[in-house]
Amino acid sequence: MKLIVGNTGEGNAVFLVEGELATNLTEAFPEVGSDLMGLIGSPSLAAQVAKGAPAKEKVPVSSIEPALPVEQPSKIICLGLNYVDHIKEGGYAVPDYPALFMRSLNSMMPAGQPMVRPTCSERLDYEVELMLIVGKGGRHIKEEDALSHVFGYTVFNDGSVRDYQRKTHQWTPGKNFDQTGAVGPFVVTPDDLPEGAVGLKIESRVGDEILQSANTSDMMWSVARTIATISEYTTLEAGDFIAMGTPPGVGHAKTPPRWLRPGEVVEAEVEGIGICASPIVDEADFASKAAAE
Amino acid sequence: MKLIVGNTGEGNAVFLVEGELATNLTEAFPEVGSDLMGLIGSPSLAAQVAKGAPAKEKVPVSSIEPALPVEQPSKIICLGLNYVDHIKEGGYAVPDYPALFMRSLNSMMPAGQPMVRPTCSERLDYEVELMLIVGKGGRHIKEEDALSHVFGYTVFNDGSVRDYQRKTHQWTPGKNFDQTGAVGPFVVTPDDLPEGAVGLKIESRVGDEILQSANTSDMMWSVARTIATISEYTTLEAGDFIAMGTPPGVGHAKTPPRWLRPGEVVEAEVEGIGICASPIVDEADFASKAAAE
Repeated sequence: MKLIVGNTGEGNAVFLVEGELATNLTEAFPEVGSDLMGLIGSPSLAAQVAKGAPAKEKVPVSSIEPALPVEQPSKIICLGLNYVDHIKEGGYAVPDYPALFMRSLNSMMPAGQPMVRPTCSERLDYEVELMLIVGKGGRHIKEEDALSHVFGYTVFNDGSVRDYQRKTHQWTPGKNFDQTGAVGPFVVTPDDLPEGAVGLKIESRVGDEILQSANTSDMMWSVARTIATISEYTTLEAGDFIAMGTPPGVGHAKTPPRWLRPGEVVEAEVEGIGICASPIVDEADFASKAAAE
Repeated sequence: MKLIVGNTGEGNAVFLVEGELATNLTEAFPEVGSDLMGLIGSPSLAAQVAKGAPAKEKVPVSSIEPALPVEQPSKIICLGLNYVDHIKEGGYAVPDYPALFMRSLNSMMPAGQPMVRPTCSERLDYEVELMLIVGKGGRHIKEEDALSHVFGYTVFNDGSVRDYQRKTHQWTPGKNFDQTGAVGPFVVTPDDLPEGAVGLKIESRVGDEILQSANTSDMMWSVARTIATISEYTTLEAGDFIAMGTPPGVGHAKTPPRWLRPGEVVEAEVEGIGICASPIVDEADFASKAAAE
């Protein structure tokens, strides 16, 4: 099942995507609600809506303005170093435990919305990632059970302000600039992807320029192992986001560095899920536009 | 104004504390609501309730079971290294930017609730800290305006599982074990404390054993500078928690290390605010008690 949360001018709804068309599930099944939490909380409802809804409800996918798939995830946990070649390009040693950090909700935005380059830095960098959305929560989830805790997979662009990321050893500031983490727009349930979302091409681009190109099979920590590792210390909750780390090719490691520039549109893609596109906008322009609205 | 959020058996309420007695503000002024967000959102309401309420509403402070002062803070940002002698005892260099990390809400609990020592580690450590609760939110807050964005100050014990904190350079796991960050119980508004909450004795203890003893004047980053620094990258929101770092004397730096043990009660105190006490409970006992309830 491929889903998109967004609106066509009448508030957010959940849509079932089939090709270029989408069925408004929220209209057909009001208990679905305005984001994925309704389906996450009710596997029977999810099974029901997977069968579709009356054809009259279909709209073009392109008419939907994406929203975050979960409006208020309880936490957003990101795995920092998960592709060996990306670890090397950043000058880090290959760790025996994942480098984990968190993002705040106000650092995140849906696919299609501007990724804001801050006034204080020109070092805005892209990071395409596989992201999972937790279905059933839990603590001390065993690796062999972990995949049953995934509601679905989406695409994440972990926009990073590199000089602020490395102000100290803690990456928090550079990973938490307002409006830098792009999510979506599509969420694909596990039954429509290879087990653990392995074997998927993962790529980022600006126009014809391919920035990163790899495969999710190169991830050192699998989705299942990551869930087991994280749930050793924290209770995962329904709707939590977990980002699975980025492959090599990030801008700061290129010679010369390849920073994102206002006017560009960066695309992050994971095969079988979709493309998360973000126009780069300068903070001053974004702020003046927001003030005018 | 000294406040406590908690319940006396009838749901959470906000209480105004005067000595050993407390006035139920939520009963007297229903618009106050069940946590501090009502007062944070309405300075005029806060000014009104500061004058008190009918005497018949008073209850002993000791009869109130504390709750988190804000039920759902949007984010919890912690400053890692803010007292020079603590930086040295941890083997870190003195940075020119604060080491910032985040905690998830499920790692937090109110004063009085168990601090859970996990099964996977015996290295549970205390960290007494001054914590501020954001009043008016904002981005790019200037240092000279920053103190007007503080709603109040409370006490934080940043319970840390040291071996998980140092699994990699990112501290997230060790700082986010379920039920390890103790907050409260009292929140004191800025008008009742020295400007920027400087000059306050800050201490942690187990019984007669003084673990940490310092003064908030030793903080390298003041409250104002911290708010300015953080709001350079993220929009602070009403109700956000910011923890101001811990002074020297933490358990892992003592010889031999002084870990918290089940059966102990650790107290964190900031002068003029109050004592945040947490009984240490083993995860297995905590889980079996939770299952029985």
